[in-house]
Amino acid sequence: MKTNPGRFFEDYVLGETIVHAVPRTISGGERALYHALYPARGALYSSDEFARTCGLPASPLDDLAAFHVIFGKTVPDISLNAVANLGYAEGRWHRPVYPGDTLRSESTVIGLKENSNGKSGVVHVRTRGLNQRGEVVMDYVRWVMVRKNRMDAPASTPVAPDLKPALDAKDLVIPAGLDFTRYDFTLAGEPHRWGDYEVGEKIDHVDGVTIEEAEHMIATRLWQNTAKVHFDATFRDDGKRLIYGGHVISMARALSFNGLANAQMIVALNGGAHANPCFAGDTVKAWSEVLDKAETAAPGVGAIRLRLVAVKQGAAPFTLRGEDGKYAPEVLLDLDYWALMPL
Amino acid sequence: MKTNPGRFFEDYVLGETIVHAVPRTISGGERALYHALYPARGALYSSDEFARTCGLPASPLDDLAAFHVIFGKTVPDISLNAVANLGYAEGRWHRPVYPGDTLRSESTVIGLKENSNGKSGVVHVRTRGLNQRGEVVMDYVRWVMVRKNRMDAPASTPVAPDLKPALDAKDLVIPAGLDFTRYDFTLAGEPHRWGDYEVGEKIDHVDGVTIEEAEHMIATRLWQNTAKVHFDATFRDDGKRLIYGGHVISMARALSFNGLANAQMIVALNGGAHANPCFAGDTVKAWSEVLDKAETAAPGVGAIRLRLVAVKQGAAPFTLRGEDGKYAPEVLLDLDYWALMPL
Amino acid sequence: MKTNPGRFFEDYVLGETIVHAVPRTISGGERALYHALYPARGALYSSDEFARTCGLPASPLDDLAAFHVIFGKTVPDISLNAVANLGYAEGRWHRPVYPGDTLRSESTVIGLKENSNGKSGVVHVRTRGLNQRGEVVMDYVRWVMVRKNRMDAPASTPVAPDLKPALDAKDLVIPAGLDFTRYDFTLAGEPHRWGDYEVGEKIDHVDGVTIEEAEHMIATRLWQNTAKVHFDATFRDDGKRLIYGGHVISMARALSFNGLANAQMIVALNGGAHANPCFAGDTVKAWSEVLDKAETAAPGVGAIRLRLVAVKQGAAPFTLRGEDGKYAPEVLLDLDYWALMPL
Repeated sequence: MKTNPGRFFEDYVLGETIVHAVPRTISGGERALYHALYPARGALYSSDEFARTCGLPASPLDDLAAFHVIFGKTVPDISLNAVANLGYAEGRWHRPVYPGDTLRSESTVIGLKENSNGKSGVVHVRTRGLNQRGEVVMDYVRWVMVRKNRMDAPASTPVAPDLKPALDAKDLVIPAGLDFTRYDFTLAGEPHRWGDYEVGEKIDHVDGVTIEEAEHMIATRLWQNTAKVHFDATFRDDGKRLIYGGHVISMARALSFNGLANAQMIVALNGGAHANPCFAGDTVKAWSEVLDKAETAAPGVGAIRLRLVAVKQGAAPFTLRGEDGKYAPEVLLDLDYWALMPL
Repeated sequence: MKTNPGRFFEDYVLGETIVHAVPRTISGGERALYHALYPARGALYSSDEFARTCGLPASPLDDLAAFHVIFGKTVPDISLNAVANLGYAEGRWHRPVYPGDTLRSESTVIGLKENSNGKSGVVHVRTRGLNQRGEVVMDYVRWVMVRKNRMDAPASTPVAPDLKPALDAKDLVIPAGLDFTRYDFTLAGEPHRWGDYEVGEKIDHVDGVTIEEAEHMIATRLWQNTAKVHFDATFRDDGKRLIYGGHVISMARALSFNGLANAQMIVALNGGAHANPCFAGDTVKAWSEVLDKAETAAPGVGAIRLRLVAVKQGAAPFTLRGEDGKYAPEVLLDLDYWALMPL
Repeated sequence: MKTNPGRFFEDYVLGETIVHAVPRTISGGERALYHALYPARGALYSSDEFARTCGLPASPLDDLAAFHVIFGKTVPDISLNAVANLGYAEGRWHRPVYPGDTLRSESTVIGLKENSNGKSGVVHVRTRGLNQRGEVVMDYVRWVMVRKNRMDAPASTPVAPDLKPALDAKDLVIPAGLDFTRYDFTLAGEPHRWGDYEVGEKIDHVDGVTIEEAEHMIATRLWQNTAKVHFDATFRDDGKRLIYGGHVISMARALSFNGLANAQMIVALNGGAHANPCFAGDTVKAWSEVLDKAETAAPGVGAIRLRLVAVKQGAAPFTLRGEDGKYAPEVLLDLDYWALMPL
């Protein structure tokens, strides 16, 4: 057979590194499309001039766009037969991506645990995105539940990696040269600086976007993510196309500009859950909670740890979980990340 | 509160200049998207080679795309609490925008007049778009009706600026170096030159485009225009997303290629009214009327003043106003502008 | 009349060359949009680094995108009054297109034959796409059935060009410098090389994409193809917008990555039929058949001739024609092309 059937649980080998296909050169086109698909307004990612004032050579590609490019390449090898995308951990952005950079991805299998039903198992991989110089651009751990193909394939010794619930502020990588001492709050859009946010504070980002089929497909294809379920309306019994979770991540993050305009750079992804599926016609809104704050060694640069929650129409204010401890049905995403903000 | 509530009528101060967030660097991506969203075919804006033949260093960003970028930045400060977008006047393009340019905007309050109901007022602003060298790229006057928040806020002395009904041809700014003496009418797509148009002549542009939600949202986001009403289907009682008026302007202008292919550069916006709202599913068509003509000092370059009318399905030929003097319900846009055309 | 009525059958003159409007400069924006609209993943067209490993200076624009740009320009002169797009032949790509290139098109009338009903006729044109240096980028023959306007216009002597059913492998133009001896199959996404494919082999490409109005219009406009029927829902009696055949070609070709990831460059278009119309809501899938194979003079480079068939929902496996010899109703496209593949 010439087509790719994807890997099944029994095909993964602990410690193996899988080199993913198709490297991608980024241009101004990807940036323009990102800004056309999401209401992204971070000044550092919108203006070369603003970025230079902050010590960078030019405006980088949005951090989440870099993540999507790197993630998209892993789909044919990691999640084609996935039953569920279970979580993320220990994600770090190591250096910005600029137009002209070429990205590729590779993943090392760091955990394998067959489910007790013998029909599927959980695979942990650590994925690295690399640029054309072989430098790590970002890395993260992701785990998925994958079907078995041969039910009689023997189960190996279960291994689950030891993952940090969140990265320490000291483990964050601050881009070389970053300096917020000349940061222009007017051009950035909001006056609120690092010192203005308190741990425990919650922010309703107010704005909402109703999701369209054409938009989520354009976005998902741009990242060369090929999972059938996002594109083929005949694939699911209900005739719905499931929206790529990353589309909801980017939409929520972009909406969070209103209240967090100065949370410019995402430097770590501590964890994330796609709490409920999102479909075209849903109206996505977002709220954030300040989880932690830390200083950094870079001039004028503070770190802020945020919970970003995407919800859909009908959600009560700051909805997260019901009394049963489960995510409320209107919650689409619960993300935990570190961003950099001017002091 | 961390999110932007927008300004209310009583928050504006006559003479104040508001510096708008978020500067934007333009690349080939914005141009490609503009040409993907609108049937734009002006040769000067499509081909670097053609632009060089006309004395420009390269193909600029479409004039209306520059306008949208500059306009979009003003929305959070000017029209977030606007009840109505009342008009434009004295708009001039001062220099072309090229890939690599970074645009920002600022607006000066030049008129304030509270309505007799005491609940809202009319705000006039003159907005300037600036590039990375601080040069004015375009400026225009716009006025909006804005709600009051504190109904007991005292009304200031009403001031309404003295605005020209249309710019004189001698006030038009011709881009440095522009020369149409070697203009290639075959490559431009039509043989009709400046001398072929007569004042009073009307042109039905024939073609139509049915509007999609995904397309107007992609366009509006690209300009970083964040008004909720364009994106959130739960915002209005009728569940409809109101289409950004600029989307209709660009669609109508692009449709006018068929009959006005050589009306290459827009250099002035004399006025404009969004006569009726536009929604997804509407099919937009356009017609034009020649309002005036003038010579310019640039070699081979004439100026033509045009009325551009966008209508939707069901409009009678050259529909504008009913017997009551009001815009017919099928009229979406009535725009008055100056363009440059080869003699 | 200022607008373009298009040419009718009696307006074409044998041997005449028509220079088409509007030249177009390509940037990274066009490439990003192509990859956002189609699940295109050919490594040579995705990564500058990969392309350099194959002896090219950078990653070219996808071959079909170049075709669409060249084809789009011909629409106002060739197919505005076409009743049917009948076929393609002898298409060859002569050199890759890179960001920064400016493309234009011209067509020579090589065949004219009035239909026996006296109301229409078949026009054959050979279209050439040229870059800013006047070099031929691609050329192809296309024939369309065009309406007559003046029914009493006399019929000229019928001329039908002598067209090859398929180009010989020796007539293929291999891009200068192309070398697949260092080809990286892992980064390309599949291990299957030229030697792994057998003439007569059929491949079901498995994946499907449900078509959206916004997407096909964005694509078709990007190529500056202005045929009303693609954009105006009020144009056809059934209220449907007919999808540009080239959208189906690109969608099917991109879907064929899964099984033909290494069929990197399209170098010839032997023939093609748009078997049935495609509308929004259709789910497009594709299958291929290996028609021929040949060696080339370039190092490590083989040629493979492929039939690419696009079908919609409800198609039986490898459906092509019914017992009556006609295309099955689920078949959208039957395309015959040569591609280059590593040995």
